[in-house]
Amino acid sequence: MKRFAIMGSGGDAPGMNAAVKKFVDLALMRGIRPFLIQDGLEGLIDGRIREANHADVAGILHRGGCVIGSSRSKRFYDKRWRTVAYEQLQARGIEGLVVLGGDGSFRAMERFHEEFGVSFVGIPTTIDNDIYGTEYCLGVDTALNTVREALDRIYDTASTFGRAFVVEVMGRECGYLAAISALGSGAEICLIPEVDFDYDVAEARLRAQIAAGRRYVLAVVAEGTKQTGSLARWLEKTFSLETRVTVLGHVQRGGAPSSRDRLAGFEFAVYALTRLEEGEAAHVCVYRDGGYDFLPIKEVVSNRYTLDLTHLSMLNFLD
Amino acid sequence: MKRFAIMGSGGDAPGMNAAVKKFVDLALMRGIRPFLIQDGLEGLIDGRIREANHADVAGILHRGGCVIGSSRSKRFYDKRWRTVAYEQLQARGIEGLVVLGGDGSFRAMERFHEEFGVSFVGIPTTIDNDIYGTEYCLGVDTALNTVREALDRIYDTASTFGRAFVVEVMGRECGYLAAISALGSGAEICLIPEVDFDYDVAEARLRAQIAAGRRYVLAVVAEGTKQTGSLARWLEKTFSLETRVTVLGHVQRGGAPSSRDRLAGFEFAVYALTRLEEGEAAHVCVYRDGGYDFLPIKEVVSNRYTLDLTHLSMLNFLD
Amino acid sequence: MKRFAIMGSGGDAPGMNAAVKKFVDLALMRGIRPFLIQDGLEGLIDGRIREANHADVAGILHRGGCVIGSSRSKRFYDKRWRTVAYEQLQARGIEGLVVLGGDGSFRAMERFHEEFGVSFVGIPTTIDNDIYGTEYCLGVDTALNTVREALDRIYDTASTFGRAFVVEVMGRECGYLAAISALGSGAEICLIPEVDFDYDVAEARLRAQIAAGRRYVLAVVAEGTKQTGSLARWLEKTFSLETRVTVLGHVQRGGAPSSRDRLAGFEFAVYALTRLEEGEAAHVCVYRDGGYDFLPIKEVVSNRYTLDLTHLSMLNFLD
Amino acid sequence: MKRFAIMGSGGDAPGMNAAVKKFVDLALMRGIRPFLIQDGLEGLIDGRIREANHADVAGILHRGGCVIGSSRSKRFYDKRWRTVAYEQLQARGIEGLVVLGGDGSFRAMERFHEEFGVSFVGIPTTIDNDIYGTEYCLGVDTALNTVREALDRIYDTASTFGRAFVVEVMGRECGYLAAISALGSGAEICLIPEVDFDYDVAEARLRAQIAAGRRYVLAVVAEGTKQTGSLARWLEKTFSLETRVTVLGHVQRGGAPSSRDRLAGFEFAVYALTRLEEGEAAHVCVYRDGGYDFLPIKEVVSNRYTLDLTHLSMLNFLD
Repeated sequence: MKRFAIMGSGGDAPGMNAAVKKFVDLALMRGIRPFLIQDGLEGLIDGRIREANHADVAGILHRGGCVIGSSRSKRFYDKRWRTVAYEQLQARGIEGLVVLGGDGSFRAMERFHEEFGVSFVGIPTTIDNDIYGTEYCLGVDTALNTVREALDRIYDTASTFGRAFVVEVMGRECGYLAAISALGSGAEICLIPEVDFDYDVAEARLRAQIAAGRRYVLAVVAEGTKQTGSLARWLEKTFSLETRVTVLGHVQRGGAPSSRDRLAGFEFAVYALTRLEEGEAAHVCVYRDGGYDFLPIKEVVSNRYTLDLTHLSMLNFLD
Repeated sequence: MKRFAIMGSGGDAPGMNAAVKKFVDLALMRGIRPFLIQDGLEGLIDGRIREANHADVAGILHRGGCVIGSSRSKRFYDKRWRTVAYEQLQARGIEGLVVLGGDGSFRAMERFHEEFGVSFVGIPTTIDNDIYGTEYCLGVDTALNTVREALDRIYDTASTFGRAFVVEVMGRECGYLAAISALGSGAEICLIPEVDFDYDVAEARLRAQIAAGRRYVLAVVAEGTKQTGSLARWLEKTFSLETRVTVLGHVQRGGAPSSRDRLAGFEFAVYALTRLEEGEAAHVCVYRDGGYDFLPIKEVVSNRYTLDLTHLSMLNFLD
Repeated sequence: MKRFAIMGSGGDAPGMNAAVKKFVDLALMRGIRPFLIQDGLEGLIDGRIREANHADVAGILHRGGCVIGSSRSKRFYDKRWRTVAYEQLQARGIEGLVVLGGDGSFRAMERFHEEFGVSFVGIPTTIDNDIYGTEYCLGVDTALNTVREALDRIYDTASTFGRAFVVEVMGRECGYLAAISALGSGAEICLIPEVDFDYDVAEARLRAQIAAGRRYVLAVVAEGTKQTGSLARWLEKTFSLETRVTVLGHVQRGGAPSSRDRLAGFEFAVYALTRLEEGEAAHVCVYRDGGYDFLPIKEVVSNRYTLDLTHLSMLNFLD
Repeated sequence: MKRFAIMGSGGDAPGMNAAVKKFVDLALMRGIRPFLIQDGLEGLIDGRIREANHADVAGILHRGGCVIGSSRSKRFYDKRWRTVAYEQLQARGIEGLVVLGGDGSFRAMERFHEEFGVSFVGIPTTIDNDIYGTEYCLGVDTALNTVREALDRIYDTASTFGRAFVVEVMGRECGYLAAISALGSGAEICLIPEVDFDYDVAEARLRAQIAAGRRYVLAVVAEGTKQTGSLARWLEKTFSLETRVTVLGHVQRGGAPSSRDRLAGFEFAVYALTRLEEGEAAHVCVYRDGGYDFLPIKEVVSNRYTLDLTHLSMLNFLD
């Protein structure tokens, strides 16, 4: 019987539990022995690996976070520890890995595959939605809805009296979360790393709106722009609006996974496991054009995700 | 300047407000005069139609329901009233309609188009997700999450002590909502109109699970099967489990639209409006293979949506 | 060192986990050995009792349900099994019990105390809020908010088009949950076991409202009235309103406990444990006049909770 | 017929709409003419005052914010503008006011009453819960639950991998919101303005917990301590824990009012209106010992709210 393992790596995201559960349940159904690696690459190095059965993954679908943990591993940059990691897999006869993670984790796995020939399939998992080749990363939908709920709550009080609100959301290099959130909540301003914000144009536009009766301003800022504070001061100074800042932080990573992230977690896991069964793999499972596919890891990590500005523009966004 | 109108028709669904807002805002940006028809075909007949500006659709994105109302119209089956409806449009110079609705509404519009040449584009809107040619209908994602939250709550109490829970969800002819909800919540049983439920197979499977320690059973039933009561009695009798029934009803249609339904509402509206601008239309805007497209109304209403059982089976559903 | 145990009994309710956690943490702090009885009286009889430490109750505050389970026990009606239960406590040196439950459970404990002298303090726990002597039962606030969210969702769709909605909520003999929910959601009709619903008066009132523009009717019905179906038919027949029924069922018992139920769970547990420390007890911890107190079990089980109709009337409810 | 008006003043809070609705509905039932003052004292000065009927307050119960707006008024500090405000009331024959607000607003009203003899009853409304003489201020329960949901979400990701989380909540001078939130979510650290945080004691306690297996730290900080940043740096430096900050900001003021805040809004409004009917008033309606009462405005504004540290201590909080 084949033996495959699953692990989280890097930041966690809602929906990981659905993938873990489906990986285990489906493997057992197909006569594969499934293993869980606790706490990502750190746990792999330390051999915190256990064979799983149905009971290990019962009742986890509706939980946020990732029941098998995750980590960022500095040790794994060192070949010595990668060798240890490989030996841990060897000792248990594990031939392939499913890795829930992002760019950094995939790069680490690529090297691991080159050095030791370990098969793996990556499942793109990050609320930043910034992985090349896939239109969707596991966890994004839940995060979008968490941000949406926060913005809806702010809207309640915004419409009560005149103020400006600046809400910082996650996204170090990618403005996807910020842009879609701003769109869906009707924010007046959105700052993302991909687009230079034109303060003059924005001032003219807002002045016209305020003259026409606008009483409040809602701004969504991607953390990667590092402009949360300066935008707040600008709003206060330029429009004499009392301005309040919200920094959502890790609230965005938690919460019971949305319906879509549970389904996506299942589907990613089915495809990833099936791909491992088919033979040597060093791939990422991607979602595009409404379906699932695989890209060689090299292609994924050597390209950069770019936000579809045409799509946003079609929606009159940032105009 | 061209004049187009938008209206809801049939059952309401979350996300309609996003479509209405985008229709108005985009029309104004493109130099089109947008009109709102209140309360669907009934309002069209009675001439409850008003030209809209940005202020009319401000602050509606986060609201459930449909701010312009909707209706089912018996009068519209009568040619006399359709003639009145046509005259209402004529009197205002309205050349095209965007209709948020389902099969029944589209059929009505098809006849209206044949008789009077009124252009229209339908936006598939129903939480049943049962319209031919589109993978997604506006409102489904919000409904899925509402059902999910209810099932998550039941799960809390299910795991506290031994019981069976039967939850009836919407879906007269289509089991999509029930099937995806059951999947995402790990329900043990799911009854949908498309599949004959094999009580003997289910009994054997559950008996094995109960013998192995299972203490509760969660069942999701599509209302269209009309088996909610009989399934509850069967569970009670067969397994001696105290069985409780939940009928979610219209709770499933409400709630602030999810992030996805807001975005889908925007996108459907952009495509629909653009299609109207391009000339005579009697089409439905559909979402498939990850993008938007148009199908002739005839094709949509003369075919029947079929649930993708292969996909469900791939997820080991109903096995 | 003293040894006390805690258990759930009867229906579960949100907030029980907070009480369990505080019971254990505080006992350890005070030099008491805390025990957890699994699955209520059934677990007590079967000796599923384990000593607890901080780790056993970590991370449970935000979970719905009750981590130590609960049950209704038929065996406990039989003196033979009560003797077994007593011996289980004796064997472990457990001198007192905290029991999270309702009337039925308290009655069972009263007899248990009379026969074997086992000290106990009851914490009133039921979303029905129908226990004599206390203004608040653990779990009610979470249930009220769950019902509220469902009614808010229905309101969204109700205002979209003309219909009647009948929502059945829990409450076999007590209309508290139904009445407060109806009040807080502005329902037009509320049926509770304590008040005879006057169909004629209601008809006149609704006819006047419909004449003045009302388009929908929202009705909340306590399950104990058994009038859910007949009210729906009456609405349909009398006002020709398409009428939809929702039966919330066990959805009302689940969900992450509200802030208030967590605090109440803590407070009840602190008072209950403290009371056990003070010596022989056969009491229920009650909340009234803004504070906590104790009533002899005899007083609690021999009186019946009555809904404060004066209070409801002051709020123009049911007028 | 008597004429009374209602207005919001200062920061908004969930539940204000319930009070506004009950004020109007009850006044009409009692033969009083109810008026709504838009945007607080600013609207009073400018005469944005309109008589209200049932339709004006229909469908507002489930909305966050305050439909009649609110404001902070600098002009009202000037006797000239207070005179204008008085004349606005005189011109409409309005004899009494219900004011939903906090300390600052009550102080302004006290002077207004002294100068012009205008009767008023204040309803304590602030999510800070920091008004003297009342145990409960309208809006607190909803805010507590909003904070709780954010902390529950962070808990999901906290338990996935080792980190520290610092969450800043509202409360300039009062730690109520922070303290109850920290308690209800099992936070390890809580900083409030009323208590000096002992870093050495906390360090020793956390070191012991980390040695015993603790992997993450959750800290709740009241904004009034101004220690959010310094605490985050301390956690990072002292325990080498990657530390993430969340600043909830105005998210805490929004959201559909909880069941409790709707009921409290109703009750406060009933008592306030009734008090106005009884004759000259310069009072605040307070909730204590489980019931409602009135305190002279002088007593309320000349005393300072103090957090009940004994109660918190009883819950082993901050020990």
